[in-house]
Amino acid sequence: MSISAFDHPILSGLLGDEETGAFFETAADIAAMLSFERALALSEGQAGVIPMDAAQRIAAAVLTFEPDIAALRAGVSRDGVVVADLVRQLRATVSPDDAPFVHKGATSQDVIDTSLMLRLSGVLALFSKRLDLLLKAFAALDKAHGKRALMGHTRMQAAIPITVSDRIRSWAEPLARHAERLKGLSQAGLPVQFGGAAGTLDALGDKAGAVRARLAKELGLADVIQWQSQRDRLVEICDLFALISGSLGKFGQDIALLAEMGGEMTLAGGGGSSAMAHKQNPVAAEVLVSLARFNAVQLSGMHHAMVHEQERSGAAWTLEWMLLPLMAVATGASLRRAHELLSNIRALGRD
Amino acid sequence: MSISAFDHPILSGLLGDEETGAFFETAADIAAMLSFERALALSEGQAGVIPMDAAQRIAAAVLTFEPDIAALRAGVSRDGVVVADLVRQLRATVSPDDAPFVHKGATSQDVIDTSLMLRLSGVLALFSKRLDLLLKAFAALDKAHGKRALMGHTRMQAAIPITVSDRIRSWAEPLARHAERLKGLSQAGLPVQFGGAAGTLDALGDKAGAVRARLAKELGLADVIQWQSQRDRLVEICDLFALISGSLGKFGQDIALLAEMGGEMTLAGGGGSSAMAHKQNPVAAEVLVSLARFNAVQLSGMHHAMVHEQERSGAAWTLEWMLLPLMAVATGASLRRAHELLSNIRALGRD
Amino acid sequence: MSISAFDHPILSGLLGDEETGAFFETAADIAAMLSFERALALSEGQAGVIPMDAAQRIAAAVLTFEPDIAALRAGVSRDGVVVADLVRQLRATVSPDDAPFVHKGATSQDVIDTSLMLRLSGVLALFSKRLDLLLKAFAALDKAHGKRALMGHTRMQAAIPITVSDRIRSWAEPLARHAERLKGLSQAGLPVQFGGAAGTLDALGDKAGAVRARLAKELGLADVIQWQSQRDRLVEICDLFALISGSLGKFGQDIALLAEMGGEMTLAGGGGSSAMAHKQNPVAAEVLVSLARFNAVQLSGMHHAMVHEQERSGAAWTLEWMLLPLMAVATGASLRRAHELLSNIRALGRD
Amino acid sequence: MSISAFDHPILSGLLGDEETGAFFETAADIAAMLSFERALALSEGQAGVIPMDAAQRIAAAVLTFEPDIAALRAGVSRDGVVVADLVRQLRATVSPDDAPFVHKGATSQDVIDTSLMLRLSGVLALFSKRLDLLLKAFAALDKAHGKRALMGHTRMQAAIPITVSDRIRSWAEPLARHAERLKGLSQAGLPVQFGGAAGTLDALGDKAGAVRARLAKELGLADVIQWQSQRDRLVEICDLFALISGSLGKFGQDIALLAEMGGEMTLAGGGGSSAMAHKQNPVAAEVLVSLARFNAVQLSGMHHAMVHEQERSGAAWTLEWMLLPLMAVATGASLRRAHELLSNIRALGRD
Repeated sequence: MSISAFDHPILSGLLGDEETGAFFETAADIAAMLSFERALALSEGQAGVIPMDAAQRIAAAVLTFEPDIAALRAGVSRDGVVVADLVRQLRATVSPDDAPFVHKGATSQDVIDTSLMLRLSGVLALFSKRLDLLLKAFAALDKAHGKRALMGHTRMQAAIPITVSDRIRSWAEPLARHAERLKGLSQAGLPVQFGGAAGTLDALGDKAGAVRARLAKELGLADVIQWQSQRDRLVEICDLFALISGSLGKFGQDIALLAEMGGEMTLAGGGGSSAMAHKQNPVAAEVLVSLARFNAVQLSGMHHAMVHEQERSGAAWTLEWMLLPLMAVATGASLRRAHELLSNIRALGRD
Repeated sequence: MSISAFDHPILSGLLGDEETGAFFETAADIAAMLSFERALALSEGQAGVIPMDAAQRIAAAVLTFEPDIAALRAGVSRDGVVVADLVRQLRATVSPDDAPFVHKGATSQDVIDTSLMLRLSGVLALFSKRLDLLLKAFAALDKAHGKRALMGHTRMQAAIPITVSDRIRSWAEPLARHAERLKGLSQAGLPVQFGGAAGTLDALGDKAGAVRARLAKELGLADVIQWQSQRDRLVEICDLFALISGSLGKFGQDIALLAEMGGEMTLAGGGGSSAMAHKQNPVAAEVLVSLARFNAVQLSGMHHAMVHEQERSGAAWTLEWMLLPLMAVATGASLRRAHELLSNIRALGRD
Repeated sequence: MSISAFDHPILSGLLGDEETGAFFETAADIAAMLSFERALALSEGQAGVIPMDAAQRIAAAVLTFEPDIAALRAGVSRDGVVVADLVRQLRATVSPDDAPFVHKGATSQDVIDTSLMLRLSGVLALFSKRLDLLLKAFAALDKAHGKRALMGHTRMQAAIPITVSDRIRSWAEPLARHAERLKGLSQAGLPVQFGGAAGTLDALGDKAGAVRARLAKELGLADVIQWQSQRDRLVEICDLFALISGSLGKFGQDIALLAEMGGEMTLAGGGGSSAMAHKQNPVAAEVLVSLARFNAVQLSGMHHAMVHEQERSGAAWTLEWMLLPLMAVATGASLRRAHELLSNIRALGRD
Repeated sequence: MSISAFDHPILSGLLGDEETGAFFETAADIAAMLSFERALALSEGQAGVIPMDAAQRIAAAVLTFEPDIAALRAGVSRDGVVVADLVRQLRATVSPDDAPFVHKGATSQDVIDTSLMLRLSGVLALFSKRLDLLLKAFAALDKAHGKRALMGHTRMQAAIPITVSDRIRSWAEPLARHAERLKGLSQAGLPVQFGGAAGTLDALGDKAGAVRARLAKELGLADVIQWQSQRDRLVEICDLFALISGSLGKFGQDIALLAEMGGEMTLAGGGGSSAMAHKQNPVAAEVLVSLARFNAVQLSGMHHAMVHEQERSGAAWTLEWMLLPLMAVATGASLRRAHELLSNIRALGRD
């Protein structure tokens, strides 16, 4: 199907981003959820919560396990979460003796939130790399054209001349700060989620802390106490997504205005028109504006989802699932198209 | 891929709606765009803008034409719209003599906006049918349990007893009004879009009006002057989508609260938990709240897209493409799950 | 105080609208709430729910009653609604014998929602008048300059020449439709709200219907069954507010672009700069864009408020109070400034 | 006037916050703008850009200057910014010889953005203090009731028992992180804005850097290069506002649910009903939900305002003015009411 532009066989060429999107494919989600179950079994084996040999058999089984997607789909429709059926399938894969040791003491949210954090770690690394590339490309543009003159515009009116460097600063400096913000989020490490039925890890008794620490280490995540109804760390990541696409939206809007007014920019790669052969539309620039506004819209919903009642809110949590992947891919697409747009600027400014 | 929950092989079981989604599949969009090109050729043939036999050959060619999707994807990435490449492919399909008569006098927006309106006509008809079914189901629930007592709650506190009928009224009456609103929108007929390069249909001279009238009739749409930068009719439809899912969100929230407080409702079909076998989660009710908030979020972006500059805004128009299909499917899913939830209410109220 | 731009002693000059704002002043709200209490007493007197002479004494007392605002403020802080304290004050004004007949059978929401509808009736009438004025001004602009040429722009690029009339159509036609939509809402009449404690008017027994009918008639509102947790009619009005300001935002954006590109418009009344004496900033045009986006943002919250749980949601209802007046005044300001901007267009198009 | 609930003579009792609101009163804004002009004159005097004695006379004049508010209001209506008229008035206050040295080399945005940052520094300090108080109050609640049992709820269903401490953790931990985030923003120091007409400080030549450094020091702000079209630092502050009110919204929602379900909490200070004497409505809890959703809505607009075209966008900048003060006061009100609510919890949990 093709309801979302990001998944669309045609429109994804304009608005999507394969590299970011890959983290949200079903296969990636399932792989990350299975990593959780595998790491959990091993951590519980090491901590003596379940027999070590059962843990190793479970870990081995997970490696080759391929879930029945149709059954997962029916499961999520009924249960609201995919994990109940995934665990059922996984337990059916191992021996009846080992089955009770699968997913021991964990709950759906542990699997789903941890899977998300694992994949977001990859997304943040990707965006960090792309921001660095963009900053280099802006530096190169500055080197090539920075000293040329550009008419400064304030409030949609010509003001006084500035330099191309001045304008490039307004595009690149926020990105440099976003790169720092990303680093700040990544350095702390994204958090594992592990709380059990209602966040108290009851089923693990005094071994809960040790299991969680091993689990986090195994998965390369930060070992923190469960945050299942505390969504601020997740929302903060989305804030940053919208900050990034917002700054790139300003870049896109400026390029579109330069294209419309003419005379100060040579832009390659413009889009063709089905009605007017003479036109070179600044498509990538417009798309940056669309993506910025798209994320500005979605972000609102992520903040609503902070009103996450009691120990787990089905309503608020499900809302996140609808919004966060869209925001991530919109941000990825924004970074991708900004780089492409930048590399199509052949000249900027006046002599 | 599976970035959006609505397109997701697993999550769509929870949040999607196949029947609504079908209107936004690539195949449906292409079919509708080709209907436009076919009807355009025939209308222009009848009006004498192009030779009638060429029109008939084009109309015939369109019927069996299967576009190269990969080329369309590359085209939209470059041009910002799919139509430039679609027309190029279509022209390559017919004879060189007929090629100039394909898409004669039209522009991308004519094709894309008309295709959307054709498909939205189907969506409105579907929703109309579903609202009627829901109203019948509420009437049946009322008949079965309406006279029983229910504790009325105001401001999250027990107030005074009401009847089950009183509560059902608060769920069903807005839906009856939405059904009327839908009828109002459908009766007028959704509008064809036909304006040419900059909205003036220059290329058709004094035959422009006749062609547009035939085109509209052929497609079953209302014959109105172009509205390419006037997005209010489109946004009004989205307003209604959000009104529908908003009212169903109130229903879902009420059911979730009845489920949480217990004692006044028997609900079948609750979701299972991976950690607690005793639970029956009111999943469908929660999902109605999520979908209501999702649409409340998206709608904001559709209203932003009304700031549609000049004769055609790439930025504002593209934003619509990202939002509207999501809203339509969320509304469809909301109607679908509301009906399912309703049919799972085994008892409501107290003796 | 001056937290909101609309109430701000300075910024309201730019963004406010006194005529619309007047409907949301405390005095106007209190006057409308007292009209409700007066009409209620008289209607209940006529229906024999309370003694007619008591009703007349209450009605007379209301006319000269001036509430203690500080006590109302303390009351709303404690009770969440102003009505509990207002009724307490009103009862203290009449004789102890009449006191129980004040507000008989009504609840806070009846007073507050009805007061809002009374004032919204005025707002809709005002906007209707302003839309008519705007349409006349656009017609005059068309008459003066409509036949001149204007470069059509699509996707931020010069396309082909159009006429000034073509462009004016894109500004005025949506406003004509909005005027029709307004008429549709007004003709039905805005609804009275009257439901009592939990919406069932228990306290009035079989006289409930008669009282409500008289009450509605007395107040010039439509007599409909209570809608206290059915917010669609209210939200629909806000949808229209955002449609109006959205269309005017497109007008503003177009004017700002004409001002920036130069050569096709002479605009008087531009704003001065503190740094550059030569500039004439298209301030009113920019403000129209700001107001359009402001309403596009707020509207999202009104749709969230449709998730109005049970018989009365304090959380959802209070959210409306924060948003709706802002939207109304933003729409009023948008209409006001659009008219002013329009009258500052001295010339449009090229010969 | 009283359009906004935060400025409203009555509703501000429910939703406002005087201490936060004070930073957005006209008087506070004017005082901060005049601080800028005073510090600018002194910095330019010290740097030799203007005569030192003129600088001192201007600085002295500013101290006793009281602007004509009506003229400022007319000015902002015309110019879009208050500064043009403020500077005009200020120049008329000093001698004709000194007049040209007032506001030398600066532009409106320097004054307005710096004034905002000065006041936001105060807001952040206030919120920091309030978060600390809240954390202490949560710690006290934990000490008093933490070991008692509470039924854990997931997906609107009773799950397994947890402790009151477990629940308090879910309320307090995000606040502790917000306090850290606040500290991070404050430690860096909020940035001065100083760029002149188009951001290049042309008028100051090679003394621009020295003047800006002195200006920043004089005002207690961070000395950074101008950021007039780079709004990320401002938006990041609003992100934090919405994170704070979002976490408190979860607290409010949980308290409202505890109040509705009964049996596990004793809450004092509930609101009275005009219709039902027996009710104790959890008003403050509901208000926290309303304020959380209010900020989630507004934040979207702040992110849209990042699409700030060219050297200064009237449209995007003006949008900030409408949103940011509302968000700040909503956050302040949220912190105030959360503390009040917390101190009304007399007992929590079961023995």
